[in-house]
Order: sequence, then C-alpha cells, then structure tokens
Amino acid sequence: MPKIAIVIFDKFTDVDLWLMWDLLNRVHLPDWSVKIVGSSEAHRSVTGIPVTTHGTIDDANAADAVLFVSGPGTRDAIKDEVWLSQFRLNAEKQLIGSICSGSLILAKLGLLDGKTATTYPTSKQLLETMGVEVIEKPFIAHENIATAGGCLAQQYLVGWVIEKLADSEWRELVLRSIQPVGEGLFFNDVERLQPLYGPVSAMATV
Amino acid sequence: MPKIAIVIFDKFTDVDLWLMWDLLNRVHLPDWSVKIVGSSEAHRSVTGIPVTTHGTIDDANAADAVLFVSGPGTRDAIKDEVWLSQFRLNAEKQLIGSICSGSLILAKLGLLDGKTATTYPTSKQLLETMGVEVIEKPFIAHENIATAGGCLAQQYLVGWVIEKLADSEWRELVLRSIQPVGEGLFFNDVERLQPLYGPVSAMATV
Repeated sequence: MPKIAIVIFDKFTDVDLWLMWDLLNRVHLPDWSVKIVGSSEAHRSVTGIPVTTHGTIDDANAADAVLFVSGPGTRDAIKDEVWLSQFRLNAEKQLIGSICSGSLILAKLGLLDGKTATTYPTSKQLLETMGVEVIEKPFIAHENIATAGGCLAQQYLVGWVIEKLADSEWRELVLRSIQPVGEGLFFNDVERLQPLYGPVSAMATV
Repeated sequence: MPKIAIVIFDKFTDVDLWLMWDLLNRVHLPDWSVKIVGSSEAHRSVTGIPVTTHGTIDDANAADAVLFVSGPGTRDAIKDEVWLSQFRLNAEKQLIGSICSGSLILAKLGLLDGKTATTYPTSKQLLETMGVEVIEKPFIAHENIATAGGCLAQQYLVGWVIEKLADSEWRELVLRSIQPVGEGLFFNDVERLQPLYGPVSAMATV
C-alpha cells in the first residue's frame, strides 16, 4: 500500500506542487495513495492560491515517499525550528526528495550531509553555505534521497518515485502521457494510455 | 492592461490549469492580470481538488486572452448548452486557445471551423467527428486561435500568449525558468531570472 506525501508550506511555487500531484495521481494501482500534507489546514501558494491539506507532517513521517515542494516559503521553513522538529524522516525506510529550493529543507534536516545535490539557480548559493556540494544537473539521487532542480525536473523526481513504488512501466506511461503531441506522445498511443484513465472512483479523491 | 482568463469547469485536469497559471503569473508587468474563471464559485478537478474561481464567463468574454483547460469534464461541457451560450468570444479581438481536450470546446463554439487543430490522443476521434482536421503537432495557431496537445505543450500555448501580450523576451525568460537545471536552465541564469521574482505584492493575488 504505497503512501506518498507531498509537503507544502506557505508561499510555495504552484507548479511544483501540481505537476507532482497530477503525475502521481495517474498511477492507478490498488491502495496507491497521494496526500498533500502540511502544518496547517491550508497553505497559500506564492500566487495566493489556498490549498487545503489532506494530512499533517505525521502523515509524511509515516509515508513511503516524502516529497518537498519549493518556493520563496522555503526560506521561512528552514528558520522555523518548531516546524522542522515535527519531521521524523528515515532515509533507510523512506524515499525522500525535493524539487528546486525544497533541497534547502532536506539540507536543514541533515539529509544531504556528505551528499551532492541539485537545486534552483536562485538557491544554489544558500544551499552551498549549508555545506552541500551543488551540481548542475536536473536530478541527483543517492540511494533513497533525491533532489531535482528546475520545475520540469519534477518528471525525473516523480519518475524515480513511481519506478521505486510501482514499476518502470508505470513510470514510462505516466511521463509519456504529459509530453507534447508529436514530441514524445502520439495519437496512436491512445490504447496504451487507457490504464491512466480508469474509473474516477479508482482515483485519489480528497 | 492585458487581461487573461483561464476557463475551468468540473473534472478538469489539474496540471492543465496550474502550469498555465504559474507560467502566466511569472510575467511581472504593470496591470498584467490572470484570472481563473468558471460558471461556479468553485470547480473540482478530476482528482477532487476544489478550486475557487476569481471570475465568471463574462470575465472571459472581456479578456484579451481566453485559455481553456482540459480533462474529462470537457465531455460534459460540450453538451451543456446553457454553459456554452454564456460565451461571447471574438477571435478578431481576443486570443483564444486550448490545451488537450479543451479543443473540443473551441470546436463546439465554432472557433475551429475550417481550421486545422491539435488535441490529446484520447480526444482526436471526437474532435474529428466535429468536423476538424486534427494534426499530430504540439501546437497549431491560426491568427488569434491556437490549440495545443499534451500537457507540456502548454509551454507553446502560454509562450504564444506572452509573446503577443508582452514580448518575446518575457516569453523566453518565463519558459526558461521552468526547464530542468543543466537542460535549458543553468546556475549562471541567476541574475537573468530576477525580473520573475520581484516583490510578491507585484504578483497576481486572489
């Protein structure tokens, strides 16, 4: 029963939540569960969009995969010791990943100690001051910990989670399903796409 | 004072709203306005996420650019004569575009008569039965009307709107800002990205 938690906070970058959310919800397997979690009933994105959370940081602590979004709010998050102290993540048992400046939170939680990582260009310097060697790549994984940089690199991050918790066929299918037509997705893929568009009742609802 | 309306409805595809929304909100120009509009105070996405609208179909009728999202809900939308009758779009004065199965709505509104268009693989046949010649391309524009197919083809659609209503520099900058690090976005872009990350007060808030 794979459980995935996407951690949000105030002033997050909209697409860094919703691309992950949408892709992860395309996996239609029994008991596949994706939740948006946070420390409040709702968090507001950097553009002012309120998002109701489905669970708490405790749900992240109990999930099989924990993914951190990004945004200006990461600067406040890494200074919020009360918030940080709620995390009890375990890289032996959980997949833990971040997009863009979400890597600052991984670093603050000690998860990037001695590891290379990637991040968004505007967060590179700060991540380096936290003692992390930052590499100009879209995606870097060390065993169960992964960082991705640049919003569309969510494809690598989500693909990594799907391959680990489902399989490589689901990964390929989910990532194919969002490519531009004629550039990775084709009209004759219509049959192949069917597993993604099962009954809505089988999909994550909140 | 460029006004952009993104039209949503029940059972829309999450990322087909939020990628557009996020990208369009990266343009920081005076009076640049982006609104999510619909026929209800809120619409629920195909994964069950409720989204509060910022305006009505009348706001779409008065916008400089009108963009239709996609999702299973398009099948209901094109049968809803009351909903369809609220649109008073004018392709002489407005940019009008769609992602994926949003093209079905453009067709139903008569906006694709005699034109080629693109769509999502699972909507190709239905769009053809509506008399549209469907071409396997990510993006097709005829003067002020454009269709895009495959979620990530929103980049072409949004780029087209930004170039028309702002300029090609904003287009390049906004699209660059979401590319994977090392594959279109680079750490030495940090200065170049500054116009995107101005004071939050200058950004769209709702």
